[in-house]
Amino acid sequence: MEEKELSHRKSHHSDKFKKDLTVRLNRIEGQIRGVKGLIEKDAYCDDVLTQITAIQSALNSVSRLLLEGHMKSCVVERIQEGDTEVIDEVLVTIKRMLKK
Amino acid sequence: MEEKELSHRKSHHSDKFKKDLTVRLNRIEGQIRGVKGLIEKDAYCDDVLTQITAIQSALNSVSRLLLEGHMKSCVVERIQEGDTEVIDEVLVTIKRMLKK
Amino acid sequence: MEEKELSHRKSHHSDKFKKDLTVRLNRIEGQIRGVKGLIEKDAYCDDVLTQITAIQSALNSVSRLLLEGHMKSCVVERIQEGDTEVIDEVLVTIKRMLKK
Amino acid sequence: MEEKELSHRKSHHSDKFKKDLTVRLNRIEGQIRGVKGLIEKDAYCDDVLTQITAIQSALNSVSRLLLEGHMKSCVVERIQEGDTEVIDEVLVTIKRMLKK
Repeated sequence: MEEKELSHRKSHHSDKFKKDLTVRLNRIEGQIRGVKGLIEKDAYCDDVLTQITAIQSALNSVSRLLLEGHMKSCVVERIQEGDTEVIDEVLVTIKRMLKK
Repeated sequence: MEEKELSHRKSHHSDKFKKDLTVRLNRIEGQIRGVKGLIEKDAYCDDVLTQITAIQSALNSVSRLLLEGHMKSCVVERIQEGDTEVIDEVLVTIKRMLKK
Repeated sequence: MEEKELSHRKSHHSDKFKKDLTVRLNRIEGQIRGVKGLIEKDAYCDDVLTQITAIQSALNSVSRLLLEGHMKSCVVERIQEGDTEVIDEVLVTIKRMLKK
Repeated sequence: MEEKELSHRKSHHSDKFKKDLTVRLNRIEGQIRGVKGLIEKDAYCDDVLTQITAIQSALNSVSRLLLEGHMKSCVVERIQEGDTEVIDEVLVTIKRMLKK
């Protein structure tokens, strides 16, 4: 995603929340490297596929945490400020998550 | 996954296939690092979630390619050798993929 | 689901919206009957599985429409009334939808 | 799906297997009717969505059973007869199931 396509809005997560997400993403990065190693040494496909499924579960957890943080902060705040457009935005995101 | 848990079987993918998977996984690793950067600089959640969905699609492609390679080589060969147990194994893997 | 487990809250969808959902569900009911017929006459599994996938897409559409209606009406209204608990409720529902 | 689009191949499931699938599909049909009733009487969306998720799980079970039956019979038999094209066919079906 190009920098310029990004929303001008900002999120305001606590440092603890950001730290938790970063730790999870570091672990996922390590898992991806692990899968590359498995492929390099011709590991059996079933084992590789099992590892990829584990990465997908870990990514699902990250996206659910982010959605939860988003809905409990930005979405609530913007609705309370009378800006209901945020609902359309988050629905687009949720539908994308449901389709993936 | 601990080394010792891995199957003793080996896959025999072509170098071209392994290269293709590795290129895809390198790109996914870069995308994970990108998401960490977005979280670090408080990018808007919708943007982060969109990026994660893109990573999940990319991982889905890798696992479909692996499943396809597996079924067209190992599964066919083992059935032709009279070893139908491979069907039970691959069904476990497919069910795991369907659940993720 | 037992009657008594149901929420005491009510939804207030327009008749047009309810009619649309009912038409979709009638069609899905017909598709289910179609699948039973296919199984009865030993249709090839690939064909039956394709039909089931079509039913699942149709059900996904119904649940996305319902979620959209819910978020645009009940969720917005309850937040505007200061009842932010609705966010926790809808997050439980969304997570269930993401897991299915 | 039009009759004429259906494969000329036939499945040969046991009566017990067909009976099991039909019982499951009858139950799903009843659940669809239940959802229509919930919408009719303005049940709370969360309750309706929970019911739809249950139907989707039930349909997933049916399609996994069918895939399993298919792979253990037709796929194995056709490979043993030297017809490996069945792998391409079932991969199309599995990819469709993974995308739904």
